[in-house]
Amino acid sequence: MPLIVTGSIGIDTIHAPTGSATDVLGGSCIYFAAAASFFGPVRLVAAVGDDFPDRHIDTFKHFKLDLAGLERRAGSKTFRWKGKYHENMNNRETLEVDLNVLAEHLPPVPDQYRDSQYVFLANTHPAGQLELLASFPKRTLAVADTMDLWIETERETLLKLLKQIDGLVLNDAEAIMLTEETNAVRAADAVLKLGPKFVVVKKGEHGALLRHGDGHAVLPAYPARDVIDPTGAGDTFAGGMMGYIATTGDSSIAGLRRAMAYGTMVASFNVEAFSLDRLKQIQRQDIDKRLGQYSQMMHLG
Amino acid sequence: MPLIVTGSIGIDTIHAPTGSATDVLGGSCIYFAAAASFFGPVRLVAAVGDDFPDRHIDTFKHFKLDLAGLERRAGSKTFRWKGKYHENMNNRETLEVDLNVLAEHLPPVPDQYRDSQYVFLANTHPAGQLELLASFPKRTLAVADTMDLWIETERETLLKLLKQIDGLVLNDAEAIMLTEETNAVRAADAVLKLGPKFVVVKKGEHGALLRHGDGHAVLPAYPARDVIDPTGAGDTFAGGMMGYIATTGDSSIAGLRRAMAYGTMVASFNVEAFSLDRLKQIQRQDIDKRLGQYSQMMHLG
Repeated sequence: MPLIVTGSIGIDTIHAPTGSATDVLGGSCIYFAAAASFFGPVRLVAAVGDDFPDRHIDTFKHFKLDLAGLERRAGSKTFRWKGKYHENMNNRETLEVDLNVLAEHLPPVPDQYRDSQYVFLANTHPAGQLELLASFPKRTLAVADTMDLWIETERETLLKLLKQIDGLVLNDAEAIMLTEETNAVRAADAVLKLGPKFVVVKKGEHGALLRHGDGHAVLPAYPARDVIDPTGAGDTFAGGMMGYIATTGDSSIAGLRRAMAYGTMVASFNVEAFSLDRLKQIQRQDIDKRLGQYSQMMHLG
Repeated sequence: MPLIVTGSIGIDTIHAPTGSATDVLGGSCIYFAAAASFFGPVRLVAAVGDDFPDRHIDTFKHFKLDLAGLERRAGSKTFRWKGKYHENMNNRETLEVDLNVLAEHLPPVPDQYRDSQYVFLANTHPAGQLELLASFPKRTLAVADTMDLWIETERETLLKLLKQIDGLVLNDAEAIMLTEETNAVRAADAVLKLGPKFVVVKKGEHGALLRHGDGHAVLPAYPARDVIDPTGAGDTFAGGMMGYIATTGDSSIAGLRRAMAYGTMVASFNVEAFSLDRLKQIQRQDIDKRLGQYSQMMHLG
């Protein structure tokens, strides 16, 4: 069933203890879409500038992404981000950010995308998320990501969004900030009272927690030995999760749990190289194979 | 099969955002022993002073602990610890510590304990751990805990200990410090090269990781909503784990994984009240019931 993602596409420059990458493809939308593409077709709505390099378009084609919703806006520049990871790879610092096209109007949603059933609103201003959400009247499942900036500065709009979506994905510090609770488990409970049917709390290298009306899921991260570049880990987690849900149509707690495990696997591959380099090397069968190993690692027999 | 634990018994005063507890029973040995007692008989070797209150002896009796190895040393004072937990309950500060009897000679090991097969050396000076270890010539499985202090100040002695034990339990920051690796997964691999057949890396509210010659186990923490007092979480985890292993005799990777899940459950109860108050209220069947729920939360179907 058709899955669509709205979000950013950027040109990233990344410095890490493991090396550097200059002017590589990044942004929540492309990480999500590449991850979801292992499970089925993915539509996207995003804008880049006329400076966007053709070599990055090749990456879209590699993942067989539908490009009808990719606007290459004349006279605008692509979003750029420059960041640095510190020794333990968990803390990162933004060195430079140029919003460029992201600071302009939203990209148009092609008419043929209006029947999209599975909708993921990657992190952006909640007013933009609300506007995009309205473009998909036939949606059966809408999930959004958000961040600390919007929780602090756009709380009212964000709360309005929460009443219209089925699921929210955010990290533990953000969940605690949003709900003013003392721990991630209580925060997840509190998010359900704000509207969504479920919330997924991402904990980076510590896995993820699901709170759903019917109960919980708790999943550890895959024990990744060689983390080269954590950029996009959260987006590829969400992409793998939503890609799997869109294929199965199962958003029960059992379905979500399995979808989160798939998201965990795709994210574990993604961090093994800069940008989308590792995802370009793998196939769906590699994901399934690692899922089997992961499942064994927590099998209680 | 006989399980024995050596470690500290103390009188704790704890301040937390959830309340305070004054002069309550604490120390690694009693937390471990109480947790292990749900699975089978537990022996202990520990010393207290002649100031040790009778009401705390009642707690030992509650958990049916064998008291032959509890030395009440005339003229000495019991170890005391005063600590404070900060808002998020993860960071704690030691306000006051009086080693007292812990700074004196080790307690004697009763002759009838020398046939102990399952041995847990709770955190103390590694020279003391080595000496105690030598008291159990018939051991089939010896596991030790340690801490940052000994890694920094007694590395050589600790490395000697590591060559004589089967398993090491420590937290993620300690594992990284011991091995000078960049993440907990690599650190766990590196610990195996120092001698132990397996290492359990505790990550507090984020669960635990096992590295064993035959592979990994990764387990999330139980999603505890109401954390009242985290004191003893690591010791009750180890106690539940070792208690289960001593009962089954199974230290294969599958057995260890299940043992770690039991440890996770006992620890999740322990944090629900100050000192050992919550463990006093539960039975083995409560642990099994929660294990069923936990298992369901990560079931991938």
